[in-house]
Amino acid sequence: MIFTYIKNAQELFKNQLHGFLLELVEYALYTADPYNAVLRSLVVNDNILVIRDLKLELDGDIHVVGFGKASKRMVEAVYSVLGDRIKGGVVITPSEEGRIGSIVLTRGDHPIPRENTLKSSQLLLNYLVENIDSNDIVIVLISGGGSALFEIPEEGVSLGDIAWISRELMKRGADIIELNTVRKRFSKVKGGKLLRFINARTVVSLIISDVIGDRLDTIASGPTAPDETTFRDVYGILLKYGLWNILPENMKKLIEKGLRGEIEDTLKPWNSLFSKTRNIIIASNNNVLEAVASKARSSGYNTLILTSMLEGEAREVGRVLGSIIKSIHSYSLPIARPALLLAGGETTVTVKGSGIGGRNQELCLSLALTIKGLKDTVAVCMGTDGIDGMSPAAGAIIDDNTIQEALAMGLNPIEYLKNNDSYTFFSQLKRAIITGYTGTNVNDLFIAVMK
Amino acid sequence: MIFTYIKNAQELFKNQLHGFLLELVEYALYTADPYNAVLRSLVVNDNILVIRDLKLELDGDIHVVGFGKASKRMVEAVYSVLGDRIKGGVVITPSEEGRIGSIVLTRGDHPIPRENTLKSSQLLLNYLVENIDSNDIVIVLISGGGSALFEIPEEGVSLGDIAWISRELMKRGADIIELNTVRKRFSKVKGGKLLRFINARTVVSLIISDVIGDRLDTIASGPTAPDETTFRDVYGILLKYGLWNILPENMKKLIEKGLRGEIEDTLKPWNSLFSKTRNIIIASNNNVLEAVASKARSSGYNTLILTSMLEGEAREVGRVLGSIIKSIHSYSLPIARPALLLAGGETTVTVKGSGIGGRNQELCLSLALTIKGLKDTVAVCMGTDGIDGMSPAAGAIIDDNTIQEALAMGLNPIEYLKNNDSYTFFSQLKRAIITGYTGTNVNDLFIAVMK
Repeated sequence: MIFTYIKNAQELFKNQLHGFLLELVEYALYTADPYNAVLRSLVVNDNILVIRDLKLELDGDIHVVGFGKASKRMVEAVYSVLGDRIKGGVVITPSEEGRIGSIVLTRGDHPIPRENTLKSSQLLLNYLVENIDSNDIVIVLISGGGSALFEIPEEGVSLGDIAWISRELMKRGADIIELNTVRKRFSKVKGGKLLRFINARTVVSLIISDVIGDRLDTIASGPTAPDETTFRDVYGILLKYGLWNILPENMKKLIEKGLRGEIEDTLKPWNSLFSKTRNIIIASNNNVLEAVASKARSSGYNTLILTSMLEGEAREVGRVLGSIIKSIHSYSLPIARPALLLAGGETTVTVKGSGIGGRNQELCLSLALTIKGLKDTVAVCMGTDGIDGMSPAAGAIIDDNTIQEALAMGLNPIEYLKNNDSYTFFSQLKRAIITGYTGTNVNDLFIAVMK
Repeated sequence: MIFTYIKNAQELFKNQLHGFLLELVEYALYTADPYNAVLRSLVVNDNILVIRDLKLELDGDIHVVGFGKASKRMVEAVYSVLGDRIKGGVVITPSEEGRIGSIVLTRGDHPIPRENTLKSSQLLLNYLVENIDSNDIVIVLISGGGSALFEIPEEGVSLGDIAWISRELMKRGADIIELNTVRKRFSKVKGGKLLRFINARTVVSLIISDVIGDRLDTIASGPTAPDETTFRDVYGILLKYGLWNILPENMKKLIEKGLRGEIEDTLKPWNSLFSKTRNIIIASNNNVLEAVASKARSSGYNTLILTSMLEGEAREVGRVLGSIIKSIHSYSLPIARPALLLAGGETTVTVKGSGIGGRNQELCLSLALTIKGLKDTVAVCMGTDGIDGMSPAAGAIIDDNTIQEALAMGLNPIEYLKNNDSYTFFSQLKRAIITGYTGTNVNDLFIAVMK
């Protein structure tokens, strides 16, 4: 097999089981690749554009807009399918400028939106307002990072205002739902509001989800998705965190207008604009887990997807996953061998040491300690974006013998774990998986194989 | 339904789903009950004693010995099946003395073996040596706590010596396997050595496992189970922890004799005594999980047993279990609703606060935060012995609305979690499960039901 994503695959091979798992990882990254994700979702048949179960007659023009870290690869794929049938469009990327066919690539700012984001977002909005005909199709390409790359504040507030309220809410312990609820009110394009600028026959958003649980109103702050929250909720949140009384006058005014119904709110699910809009998730953590499981089943493996919403302190999550692996060995529960156990999501690390590592490698190190000596077991945990914490690796591959190998090399696994130094540990063992930035992000993957 | 184990079942009811889960908990405790466990394993048919797939003709005498916290209930059950067919025996309990039929109940010490353990153990051993005929059947009843309740040191060492070496090993970070490996050498009856005193036709040990993974050599230190470790391993462990050089002369002498093959070691798996010995686990965490799952399946639920070997910091384990519950709701993975998710084992708590709680209630509190608002979800986590940490409760029952209820009562869940004060939290909410000491222990149970 030729490895496209894993740069050091040869080094990571130890035996057939390692090879099998590495091929599954490669397949996972292939599935999550924005180019492939778009390609497998779009088909043109005669004069019909088929997107999953959606069939669109191609009589009007097609326009493409988008924003997110995967923008460029997504545009390339759309262009490879539709070519010059695309009339034009504007797509915002984190770093690339230029053209793909008739589509303009322009830069935004990430992770903090500034002048580039404002300028590019206005360009995108102008394109939509000036070029769309009511018989046209608009394809919106959305991926992680879209929230920062695409933003236009509501009249009377600035990007600085939005940054300020975000900081203050986070400082006071607001959760991500509360944060988004407030922020959407100060944006002209989020919470479905982008749809107000698109006077087309059909709007299709192709979405790569980097959000646990794939909530449409959360991915890139849901510019084409319904939003059920209200100005009243916002008022409640601002009161709850003691922010209402210190809110700058211009922001307060906007909220008050909203409370009085004098300005339009985010788009509610019953808004008629949604009857011509489709939000389609073309790649997500759950997607990828299902694809990998299906591939392993065809090789005769029993498979179990635990969750694509994994959370918790990485080293403790490693122990829980280890306890399930042990049960598979001892009791053939929850599934019998040959078994493939899968999970995805995003764990966290409470940094106490001074080492180099990441949540995926830390989970791997803890898991290696838990499954020490459990024959015929190999596991991987990695970030699909290829970046694990502050380390140059995507994750690591471990087996029942990893701890023995480390001890034989004079490495003390528990010390490395204590010092949050999982990358240094795995790089010495030559067990760190190196991909470089993969150009996609559908969160983290965990795959364990038991022969 | 009449609740035998849960004292405050009426208080815990909220709706049908709570009731269903409470009935499953009651069934779990019923299954784990030592009396019931023995009863369902033993049948007399004509003159044949049937224990699972084992069939024993009742021509010789039957003797019963045993040790463990569940001893008394186990004897009662054996007596209810075999009655006066039992010739006699000695069974060691933590607190009861007297007789059941011809069997003597006598007291040992728990958790630290002292004079009572020594005296009672010698009584038990004398009974075996003096009363068993080579055509007899000996039933050995083993449950948690048996390691302290039954102990006779090897010649030349004392209970004090064994306590000393245990303490020193633990102080230096030895794991439970290493600890047991060393300790067995100083015992006359552990590591299978009890069998040397039983000159019977058949020895059947009926075992209630309180050990994660149900290792026969670990439950009550395996008095009738094979042991693969050697004096050479012991020497290695003592060197590793720097104990060999400070080992008291009498203990050192014993190890040295062992190394030279001058004294008999623990019984190896190929020892011929095992050809007439059967170790049968009649209750375990895995058992109970399977029984509950089977009952729920007959009510139309999809069930999944994750593991009976659960480990990790309780609050983090709660988040992982929560992430699986979320996945069941959002993606019908790993199973679709109506769903029952089960796990067992033993989590840990790193105490940082000053509250009253236990690992099960702490897991529940963390889980309640994770699944907040996830409709039609109820979960329980509890110790099967009825004791969760230093609290008067066995565990707690939570649902998607628990956090809301707490907030409405002015309780801050996160503060209670921070202060390790989960019992105080749940007792105010009237969500703490009260059973009192159940008389059994097959570790902790987690059951979540999703309609």
